[in-house]
Amino acid sequence: MNSYRPAHNRGLYQPRIGSVVLVGGGPGAADLITLRGYRALMSADVVVADRLAPVGLIEELPMGIEVIDVGKQPGRHTRTQEQINSLLIEHARMGRRVVRLKGGDSFLFGRGGEEAAACEANGIPVEVVPGVSSALAAPAAAGIPVTHRGIADAVQIAHGHRPVAQSAWASVAGGTCTLVLLMAVAELKAHVAAALTAGVDPSTPAAIIESGTLPQQRITRSTLEALPALAEALGVQPPAVIVLGRVAAADALRAFVAQAS
Amino acid sequence: MNSYRPAHNRGLYQPRIGSVVLVGGGPGAADLITLRGYRALMSADVVVADRLAPVGLIEELPMGIEVIDVGKQPGRHTRTQEQINSLLIEHARMGRRVVRLKGGDSFLFGRGGEEAAACEANGIPVEVVPGVSSALAAPAAAGIPVTHRGIADAVQIAHGHRPVAQSAWASVAGGTCTLVLLMAVAELKAHVAAALTAGVDPSTPAAIIESGTLPQQRITRSTLEALPALAEALGVQPPAVIVLGRVAAADALRAFVAQAS
Repeated sequence: MNSYRPAHNRGLYQPRIGSVVLVGGGPGAADLITLRGYRALMSADVVVADRLAPVGLIEELPMGIEVIDVGKQPGRHTRTQEQINSLLIEHARMGRRVVRLKGGDSFLFGRGGEEAAACEANGIPVEVVPGVSSALAAPAAAGIPVTHRGIADAVQIAHGHRPVAQSAWASVAGGTCTLVLLMAVAELKAHVAAALTAGVDPSTPAAIIESGTLPQQRITRSTLEALPALAEALGVQPPAVIVLGRVAAADALRAFVAQAS
Repeated sequence: MNSYRPAHNRGLYQPRIGSVVLVGGGPGAADLITLRGYRALMSADVVVADRLAPVGLIEELPMGIEVIDVGKQPGRHTRTQEQINSLLIEHARMGRRVVRLKGGDSFLFGRGGEEAAACEANGIPVEVVPGVSSALAAPAAAGIPVTHRGIADAVQIAHGHRPVAQSAWASVAGGTCTLVLLMAVAELKAHVAAALTAGVDPSTPAAIIESGTLPQQRITRSTLEALPALAEALGVQPPAVIVLGRVAAADALRAFVAQAS
């Protein structure tokens, strides 16, 4: 019944230990989860769902699966990370198959490393099922490849809640590295000011993809310099992915084709 | 029958135009493709498969689906990118549903941008289905989160066929940015020499994950400085993902837990 139960717990009178599977739910659309993640989800006893976990996936769960929403609204933390770790461990100790469902990928700004470590430290079998990160999929949904031959040969992914490192701005200023910023809407003005101070060209193409891959997806294209005012005027809302670099230009692909032929 | 056919081709005597779907097949294991990608694959007329496309997926295709293998062996290019573009367009013009199946994600070093642009320039409806990139999934399969609170707050992904930018090495030298190198086994020695010259600490933790997520997966952990000799001694083979940075240390997660408690 429980494929994750370690061998030493298979004795007759041993308590059954459950398991935790950290599933990356993908960028938003329900069918962008992996087959493995979907199967884990459908055979779970309990799903501990994040704020950014794809809603469509939670809605199609069978009746018998318990759903615990630990979604943290910005500025309204309902549970600390330590409380979430304890919740996962507690349910696994009851012998349950626990799926921790995140948006994107659990190991890219998903704090999956912390959850995996907490499970391991407590003797709970833990498995990680990777997911499609919105850092790549939201730009793709807007027609933006984060790398493109002759335009960008590297990509850096950073989190908007912290200042971006000077070396990352230097990469963008160099012209051939794309920067993808997650969770950066609230601090957009500060990030752009830092970029300009660091010498990034004000006319660097920029794009914001709100609700990437979902029906309400909206794409805003601009330049680095003009982005904050435009985002404010348009009422850009999280969750959003910000792309800075030449690939973000509306005509980047067509221009490349024109050059090549 | 064909949901991608543009409105102006719906007339009775118009030729039917097919479509091209660029599907990211994921890092290797067949069940790490997305549901959407899997459905596109199973309803294709023809699958144009890359060398790194998951073999398990191609093996389970129904009999009626034509498979064209355009896999390029390193140093033995069987088809140029232009020839592949033409192949996609040619089959779509015959009214067929063409799936272009890649490893990982088509828009991260997958040249999907070029294929999408070529289709668009030729009036072929094209759709992109993102995939789980091996840049994240191979480290995850080795228990390495590319970001981790207090250890790494950004990740840069670069391609090993080209020299890594100085600013990228500066990011790694800064200590809080993980560098993931794809396709870098052949040039590993040169990359490490460049890193050391750029001031990256020789004792920076490093890991190589060969055949990530597949049964034959092998993980080699070392330091930046010792990596080339060890890789040579162990006969490390592509495809492999190289991770440089503090997250690559075997005990990175446990150490973090110990610090936190």
